[in-house]
This record gives sequence, structure tokens and C-alpha cells, in this order.
Amino acid sequence: MDIQKYMQEVGARARGASRAMARAESTLKNRALEATADLLEQSMESLLGANSRDMDAGRERGLDAALLDRLELNEERVNSMAEGLRQIAALPDPVGEISGLNYRPSGIQVGKMRVPLGVIGIIYESRPNVTADAAVLCLKSGNAAILRGGSEAFHSNQAIAALIHQGLAKAGLPADAVQVVETADREAVGELITMSSYVDVIIPRGGKGLIERISEDARIPVIKHLHGICHVYIDDQADRTKAIDIAFNAKTHRYGVCNAMETLLVAEDVAADYLPTLAEQYQQEGVELRGCEATRSIIPGIAAATDEDWDEEYLAPILSIRVVTGIDEAMDHIHHHGSGHTESIVTESYSRARRFMAEVDSSSVMVNASTRFADGFEYGLGAEIGISTDKIHVRGPVGLEGLTSQKFIVLGDGHIRQ
Amino acid sequence: MDIQKYMQEVGARARGASRAMARAESTLKNRALEATADLLEQSMESLLGANSRDMDAGRERGLDAALLDRLELNEERVNSMAEGLRQIAALPDPVGEISGLNYRPSGIQVGKMRVPLGVIGIIYESRPNVTADAAVLCLKSGNAAILRGGSEAFHSNQAIAALIHQGLAKAGLPADAVQVVETADREAVGELITMSSYVDVIIPRGGKGLIERISEDARIPVIKHLHGICHVYIDDQADRTKAIDIAFNAKTHRYGVCNAMETLLVAEDVAADYLPTLAEQYQQEGVELRGCEATRSIIPGIAAATDEDWDEEYLAPILSIRVVTGIDEAMDHIHHHGSGHTESIVTESYSRARRFMAEVDSSSVMVNASTRFADGFEYGLGAEIGISTDKIHVRGPVGLEGLTSQKFIVLGDGHIRQ
Repeated sequence: MDIQKYMQEVGARARGASRAMARAESTLKNRALEATADLLEQSMESLLGANSRDMDAGRERGLDAALLDRLELNEERVNSMAEGLRQIAALPDPVGEISGLNYRPSGIQVGKMRVPLGVIGIIYESRPNVTADAAVLCLKSGNAAILRGGSEAFHSNQAIAALIHQGLAKAGLPADAVQVVETADREAVGELITMSSYVDVIIPRGGKGLIERISEDARIPVIKHLHGICHVYIDDQADRTKAIDIAFNAKTHRYGVCNAMETLLVAEDVAADYLPTLAEQYQQEGVELRGCEATRSIIPGIAAATDEDWDEEYLAPILSIRVVTGIDEAMDHIHHHGSGHTESIVTESYSRARRFMAEVDSSSVMVNASTRFADGFEYGLGAEIGISTDKIHVRGPVGLEGLTSQKFIVLGDGHIRQ
Repeated sequence: MDIQKYMQEVGARARGASRAMARAESTLKNRALEATADLLEQSMESLLGANSRDMDAGRERGLDAALLDRLELNEERVNSMAEGLRQIAALPDPVGEISGLNYRPSGIQVGKMRVPLGVIGIIYESRPNVTADAAVLCLKSGNAAILRGGSEAFHSNQAIAALIHQGLAKAGLPADAVQVVETADREAVGELITMSSYVDVIIPRGGKGLIERISEDARIPVIKHLHGICHVYIDDQADRTKAIDIAFNAKTHRYGVCNAMETLLVAEDVAADYLPTLAEQYQQEGVELRGCEATRSIIPGIAAATDEDWDEEYLAPILSIRVVTGIDEAMDHIHHHGSGHTESIVTESYSRARRFMAEVDSSSVMVNASTRFADGFEYGLGAEIGISTDKIHVRGPVGLEGLTSQKFIVLGDGHIRQ
């Protein structure tokens, strides 16, 4: 198989389909989404069967717990995928929206029209639900998608892709609007991220290694998230119950996800009161704690956190804890060790909440809420194609709008520049 | 001089200043802008003197007419620069704006807050007004700027930068918020576009060669415009007077600019009526015409347009003309030869205007208006730092908003994920 030739053909077909998608009426796009949602539910058995094959192979290959959790499909997750598709179908179509159309002193009217990006390349690893989420977000926003999933999810991805193609066919839309790369050869990725005449943006989803490699080699703009080192800061003016609930939830609700808390910062005035309660809850849940010196004097017997701990995304039941003097030291710590993903302050102080929101430079900044809310569904985007920790184009969960751009439109009546 | 060490120091100072700028109150930023505007007007004589030195050197080096036009400062242009600064000072501060803050079913409130990008590197060639426009747009949007102008505008740029530093000082803002690279060594550019820990985005302004080289070598996101091959399409349902006025203005209002029309497309049904009148006007103005076969049968004696002509940004008094069957052939031509900058249709047909707006994939799409309006001032952005022909982040004239991003903010009251 000539990979380069194959990928160029995939690209040319995607470019062709993207023009049809850019003009496709909302009704048709929604019909494809709803049909795919129905098909997902109706094909539960075969989907879970395909996923079992991937899970078995994954266990044999010795994938760790976090990876297996990402790979797994179950009835609840498939239903949630279908529900996500229906939510996206129900959302307003972003394409063609005209905003801010105002008269200028010259007499022309100037506004902006929302338009698709064109062709989007998605490169991802283990989560098979990405195949559905990514494809339909691209479709609804009038783009064509080229999907390149991980080999560990091969059977799950192919099964989902087959259903999307059926859904597209039911709406009379081109099957080339969603193409799943059919080779596991790594050369395909190298081709995908450099064929700038066919692909407008690359969205990698997966481990830090994958994303760094793709960002380095791509010759196409990349919307990426490198890692999620999320912090919760418990202020000395926090409400005790809220603080303990949020700190517990942010760590233990799910481990293998980028919006889980990795480091807990606690104001010194409340550390001795809160930390023993929290430690008991964490340890009952099997979370390994690593602490600064002050933390270890409050929670005896836990390991010392090293400098590396503050910069680590565990994606596992491990938590580093640091006692800080107050909000300034907390924000300094976040500035030096955070990844710009999600940080939350727990406080009843109006002024500190206001400062934290304004001064913490992360894609999501929260007050009195669990970092686990940093998610496209929870934010009402319908679903997300990724969480951007970049500052350019989009930050945070990327939904429909993140997959579009805006062009200027100008209306005149024979107007010329004087 | 150790260029690498020097640039790293410039970067570190910019990063430090960017934090102060991100928190700076609007009043201080506006004070710096207004003080700089006053200083520009008060220093007219010395500014024009510095510019004369650059112009003399440019003529000696044999710079062409378009480049000399870009390089030139005169009283009108300096006043227009100062006016631009005051307009930007008068604009609402984009930083901190919270939008779309709504309750979600979980009970949390989710919205977006507009935030600066951080440090912006501007690399440009001959236009000295970029030094003022770029610096103040970065300042007002809460960013720090590193400016690297062309050697041909050295004296003009240094003179403007000195005034900006005086303006910053009057407002008590850090001088490091605007740094002009003080070496003409090309290594400085190489360093600027790869020091990703200090610079968040690169905006190159200049010739295609410069921009292509920077895009290829940069390891930082680039907001760029490669070239402006702008089209006017005169439909057979156009108003004759509007068509002739717009086609004439779009070409002849100014030649050395990216929003000048380079190719005129005319519907065959009106070509024989409109083209002789237009040709006479163009030829009186000294515009060289190159045409397709049909055009040459209507305007005798003009050169044949080659395939290369349709892909060329003349930036000079040259115009290629093509007769097309109608809107579909016009849009096909634009799709194949356009640069995604600005295209305009002249028509009285509602349906064709609507189609052209929806289907032409350019950063500015116009109806019955001269392409020369594609400009930050004309669009009400206060000024522009460039015109993006990319699809990611911003398209078209880039003003304050294009230099910011949005982070999510989440407000809860002890909310946790269920």
C-alpha cells in the first residue's frame, strides 16, 4: 500500500466533500446526526462486541488502568454518545450566522458571518467515543473530517464509523465527509499533518508524547491540549463542607481524565482543620497522598512530594498536597506548575474570587466548583472535540464554534473609498 | 553582540511586562495611548526628518514605487497615526469582558472572559506606521509586544518607538511592554519565532517571501496573510455606474496595498458595454491592462493575460481582466486563483448577492463596494495589526479582539460532578 498516495486521495475526497458540507442545509446535517444516534442504540450489541475485542487485546498488551478506562464502551457510554449526537442535532447551526452588522461612517455595512474551517484532521488514541463526537461536531459545523484513531481501539472505531456512514447516506450527504483512515501505518499520520492543501486544522487527542510529536512535525495549525495539571486552592475563607466536597470530587470522581485535580493547595490557616478529614476520605478511596513538609506534619506517614510531583499529570489515584500562605502563593504555584487547563478556588471571599478569576491564566477558572466540570457537555457545547490549552483560536472545551471561523461581509450600494 | 542571549533577555522582559499589562486598568493604558498620540503630532518635524533619511536611503538602494509608498511618512499619515491611537484609546477595553454567563442544568454558571494573548512578536518590513499601530493595539489589548521592523525603516521606527516609550512612562506602565529589537541581524528573527516560552503569537507583515519563511520556521502560532489577490465580479445584473465606479476605485485608489483589485471579472452580457468605458479610464490613469481573449476582442491593443497573471499580486498599476459566463464561472475563478483575501460582486440581483456572500470563501466578501474597504479603520476596529487570510483564530483585518482570547469561567456554590 502506497501510504502517501492513499492519504492524498483521502485528502482530495475530504476537500471535495467539505464544499458540499459547507452548503448543506441544517436539516440534512441534523438528519444524519439523528440517524447515527438511532443506529448507535440499535447496534448496542455489536458495538459492545467490537469493543470487547479491543478490551481483551488491550489487557493482553498490558495497557494500564487509565488507558483501559478510556478504551471501554458500555451501555451507559454508548447511550451517552447517542444522547450527545441528539444534543448536537438540537443545537443551532453555527454556519451562516451573521453578527454585528452595523453601518460605518462611510455608509457601508460591516458584519461577520460564521463559516466552517474546511477539512479537520483528528488524531486520537484510545477513546472510541471520540470517533462519534469528533465526526458529528465536524459535520454539524459544516466541515469534513479525517479521523485517525489508535490501533488499540481499531474494532470499536470501525464499528462506529460504519454507523456514521449509514447515517450520512440516510441524509443524502457525501460519505467522504467523514473518513476513517484505514491503515495503522504511522506514515499516514506524517502525511495527514503536512498536506496543507487538503487539511485546514489538526486536532490531536491523546498522550503528551503524541501531541508533542504532532505539534513539532505539523505544517498545519494544531488545536491541542498538552496536559491537564489541575489545581484546587482551598482558601482560609472557604466554607469547610464545600471545600472538602470539591477537593474530594475533583480527585476521585474519575482518575484517567485531564480535568481531574492533580495538586491540592490549602491555606495554612485551615490546613490543620481540613486536611485530616480529607486525608481519611482519600485514603478510604485508595488515593495515594504526597505532601509538602507542612502537609506531612498534619498527615503523618505520607510520602514527601518531590519537585517532579508538582509538574506531573498523574491520571491515577495519586494526589500531591501543598500548604500555602494564601491566595498569592497559590497563584504563584499555579503560574509555575499549572498547565493552563483548569483551576478552582474555594472561598466565600468576594474579593479573592474576583482576583482569582481575573489573574489565573487558565482555559477554565472556577469558583466553588469541581474541576471535573471542565467539559463540553457540562458547559453546554453538546459535546467536545478536545480541550484546548492553547491561547490561539479556542481555549478550553472545543465545541461547534471552535470548529468554525468568521469572515467579514460588507454591504454597499456602489460605495467607493474616498 | 550575542543575538541569542539578547533576544532571550528581550523575551523575559516582555513576559514580565505582559503580566503587568494584563492587570493594567483601562485608564492607564488609554493614558499611554493618548500621550503617544500627542507626542506624534508634537514631534512632526523630527519624525518626518527621520523618515526622509529612510526615504533617501531607499531611493539610493533602488526600492520600487510600491515599497517607497509604504515607507513614506507625511503630515497626513502621521496625523492619521495619531488619530488611530486616539480612536483605539476611545474603544472599549476588550480585556475582562464576560459574555454568555448562563446557568447550566447542574447549577453551575458558565461563561467566557476575554483575556490578553500574552506576548506578541511583530515582524514587518517597510511601513513605519506599523510600529505605532501594532504597539498600541498590543498595549490596549493587555499584551506586551516585541517589534522587529525592516532595516529600510530603521530611523522612522526608532523615532516612533522613542515616543511610545515616553507615552508609557507618562502612564506609569513598564517600558518593556513595547520593545523594538535594536539589531538588524537576521538571527534575531530566527530567535524571536522559536522562543515559545516567551512569545505566544507571531504576526509577520510584509512580502510573501518573508511571511512564507517565517511560517515555515516558526515554532509559535503565526497570524499571517500571504497575499491579496482580490477580485471584483461585475454581474450582468449590475448597475452600470456602480460597476464602473467600484472597478475603477478598487484598482486605482492606491496600488501598493493588499486590498487593491488585481483581477476584474466581467459577465459576458455586459462586457462589450462596460469594458471600453473602463479601459479608457484605466488607460488615462496609466494602468496597464492584460486580458483574456474575449477581453482583447473588446479592448484592442492590450496584452494577453497568461496563466501566471491570474495568480499574481501586482501591487502596481497593472490589471488582468477576464470575461466570464456568469456568477458560477466567476466563483470558480475566485476559488482557483483567489488568495482568500477580499472579493466583491457588483449586482442588483438579491439572489446572486446572497449566493456570493455565502459561497465565496474569503476573509472579506462584499456586495456593491470597493475592495479597498477591507481595512481595520474602515471596519471600525480602530486600526489593524494585519489582515489574516488564515482561517484559524482570526480572518480579515485584525484589531483588538484578534489579539485576545477567551477563557471559560465557572461559578458554583460547592458544586461537584455527580
